[in-house]
Amino acid sequence: MSMLKVSHLFDRLSPFQIIVIFYISAVMISTLLISLPFLHKDGEPISFIDSLFTAVSAVSVTGLTVVPTQETFNTAGYFVIMFILQFGGIGIMTLGTFIWMIMGKKIGLKRRELIKTDQNRTTFSGLVRLIRQILVIIIAIEIVGALVLGLYFTEYFPTVGEAFVQGMFASVSATTNAGFDITGSSLVMFEHDYFVQFVNMLLLTLGAIGFPVLIEVKDYLTKKPGDFFNFSLFTKLTSTTFAALVAVGALLIFLFDRTHFFADKSWHESLFFSLFQSVTTRNGGLATMDVSSFSLPTLLVICVLMFIGASPSSVGGGIRTTTFAIMIISIISYARGKSRVRVFKREIMSEDIFRSFIVINTAIMICGISIILLNVLEPQFTLIQIVFEACSAFGTTGLSMGITPDLHTGGKLIIIALMFIGRIGIFSFLFIIRGKVVKDNFRYPKEAMIIG
Amino acid sequence: MSMLKVSHLFDRLSPFQIIVIFYISAVMISTLLISLPFLHKDGEPISFIDSLFTAVSAVSVTGLTVVPTQETFNTAGYFVIMFILQFGGIGIMTLGTFIWMIMGKKIGLKRRELIKTDQNRTTFSGLVRLIRQILVIIIAIEIVGALVLGLYFTEYFPTVGEAFVQGMFASVSATTNAGFDITGSSLVMFEHDYFVQFVNMLLLTLGAIGFPVLIEVKDYLTKKPGDFFNFSLFTKLTSTTFAALVAVGALLIFLFDRTHFFADKSWHESLFFSLFQSVTTRNGGLATMDVSSFSLPTLLVICVLMFIGASPSSVGGGIRTTTFAIMIISIISYARGKSRVRVFKREIMSEDIFRSFIVINTAIMICGISIILLNVLEPQFTLIQIVFEACSAFGTTGLSMGITPDLHTGGKLIIIALMFIGRIGIFSFLFIIRGKVVKDNFRYPKEAMIIG
Ligand SMILES: [K+]
Ligand SMILES: [K+]
Repeated sequence: MSMLKVSHLFDRLSPFQIIVIFYISAVMISTLLISLPFLHKDGEPISFIDSLFTAVSAVSVTGLTVVPTQETFNTAGYFVIMFILQFGGIGIMTLGTFIWMIMGKKIGLKRRELIKTDQNRTTFSGLVRLIRQILVIIIAIEIVGALVLGLYFTEYFPTVGEAFVQGMFASVSATTNAGFDITGSSLVMFEHDYFVQFVNMLLLTLGAIGFPVLIEVKDYLTKKPGDFFNFSLFTKLTSTTFAALVAVGALLIFLFDRTHFFADKSWHESLFFSLFQSVTTRNGGLATMDVSSFSLPTLLVICVLMFIGASPSSVGGGIRTTTFAIMIISIISYARGKSRVRVFKREIMSEDIFRSFIVINTAIMICGISIILLNVLEPQFTLIQIVFEACSAFGTTGLSMGITPDLHTGGKLIIIALMFIGRIGIFSFLFIIRGKVVKDNFRYPKEAMIIG
Repeated sequence: MSMLKVSHLFDRLSPFQIIVIFYISAVMISTLLISLPFLHKDGEPISFIDSLFTAVSAVSVTGLTVVPTQETFNTAGYFVIMFILQFGGIGIMTLGTFIWMIMGKKIGLKRRELIKTDQNRTTFSGLVRLIRQILVIIIAIEIVGALVLGLYFTEYFPTVGEAFVQGMFASVSATTNAGFDITGSSLVMFEHDYFVQFVNMLLLTLGAIGFPVLIEVKDYLTKKPGDFFNFSLFTKLTSTTFAALVAVGALLIFLFDRTHFFADKSWHESLFFSLFQSVTTRNGGLATMDVSSFSLPTLLVICVLMFIGASPSSVGGGIRTTTFAIMIISIISYARGKSRVRVFKREIMSEDIFRSFIVINTAIMICGISIILLNVLEPQFTLIQIVFEACSAFGTTGLSMGITPDLHTGGKLIIIALMFIGRIGIFSFLFIIRGKVVKDNFRYPKEAMIIG
């Protein structure tokens, strides 16, 4: 297909249709790749449902697994998975940002050239430029991460080659917030290595904080001294919310497990366990411990944090930080009797408020229905196990209480659907069912309603 | 205090402050009454927390109990409780309707004289007239219910006197959707008496369907033949939602417990168990069985139904049927690309949509935080037990998996707070924290945001 034809195709399809087609194609190709026997250790076979599950989990950079990655795949397999994660992560970041560009929203990027695309051929040229930008940033971060971790891992692994394969996989998995591991037990082996944890938290955050934030920070750091620079509302709101969630999350995890999981831990162990598990709910899905050791209240907090997820236009999922922040700010504004919703000396558009509520409530309903169905199909598990796995899948987080490999096919299909919807996003999901929009100016009379 | 002074007081306070003051006073007086030893069988003592709990449960017509009503109170005590339920139920219906009258919303009542109050002395005269209307309707329903049940109960109870006390209590408890019982085990003794169940379902529905619906139906039935009559949007929407929730609820309860609780039941037993337990989640809280016998998916469905609750301007609680319906309709409209939200050939006001989302999401957050706190304070209970009791309290439903009497003081206080907030409503709750509203025309620039 020539470039021109691709460009024409893009003109005919809605951006949401493009996203859905993109993901379905990616999942199909990945399922095929993952089931190739010569990528498996000892040619171990994988069932179709497990190949599909692994493909959706990898493309959506969720990290839930039904087969142990380390035992199932050989080194070539690791590289294929790394490639899928890379492709999935970059695809998500690109498409997430792209959608908002073509929907005519100036997302506050200082790099005007990124979005200054002419009206007729907007989509394709803008997309290519955007992909290039994102590729450069993500791959730069990953290379630095791989080098640092690879060098450091020579202490942990027998050969330099293995250390660097591990370092590279860990860096890609962390930066794309994929949550896959080839150590066999996530980052549990580094539970006392605060350096590895710190590097991972940094990579996770860079991947999950959002592309516009990265660009703006880069511009801020490279500006001439004395030049005026104003961060966008988006960057301020998403970064503040991100930081607040990490801090509140770590605090609650510590408080609720103070006399439980942390009972026999030192202050620095408690700090790092709390902090790492809080950061990882922003979307990473890597863990330095078995999360099912946590108490029930902590697990519920983690469920909420996974459901909220990462920044928009990042590699992460969930309802997104901005959506959550706008809901909270709207409720506070309403309670205080303000007619307009403001934050950081800017007014939030009422359309954005409406959209936030649509996203949140659709997400709650999808998760709620999935949880009830999972309880019907998998009565052998407890409620918290099912809630946890569902939130992890919808948020594309990938943390697990360990039940995923033991799900029946029906349960696996629900988790696959949650990962897929969580990844394409609530808007794309809703727009799948959207018919041809007919502009109608006919109006029915308005009638007031009693609420609450 | 003279009528004039009361009227002045009403002018100075906001309607939401009136509601909160009303409930706090009612709870204080009820706590005192309930703790009076001569109302107790054998002068059995009740602790302060249990008196307070019972008072809040009665005033809010929830029906959760920490002491068994039948064993604790004597006949005089039953009458005092009946009086509190009556007062609570009527108060709720009156204030719920009243708030919307004075907020300048024409709620679609055909009886214009009910809301045609002059601007200066709006509140007090309107309120008195409204209370009279509601009293007449509710007491008429209760008297018919008490007579029918009292007569019928002569078959069940040894003396005619006891039969009529039971019938009267049952009628008041059902009509006000209070959920209290003096049989000792709700309606379990009538599990095979479909007549008693039918009468109770009817009374529950009349109490929970909403005062404007009752008035409109009365007007419709008493109109001259050939007169044109149009039900209000409110009546159409709330009745449809009410019926849909009952039908879907009963169906799901049956389906999810088909091979479990209903495994050894006949079709008519299954039908009545499913239907009654579905109707009772609309707010009654009476039960013909021990709900903890249900399977986990059914319990989750019941939690959702209790959270949604009854019609506004009824004796019931929860987020209310209209709020839930507007959320669903808004999401569907958005997904279908409609710029306006319509139902029954009317357009829903965007302000009402915004308010619905505020109510739902505040309610979800309040319940979520309460559930996490209950899990911290009461680690001896399972997650579903705590979720169930929290939803029941917030929805002022009163169904119970049996853990309420065994809660610690901290847990009881959370349930008390949930019943109180559930009763005064999310708006009143939010407006407690509302400061003096200053009209400001200064505006910050708007800035778009990336959502979801
Ligand atoms: K992930
Ligand atoms: K009730």
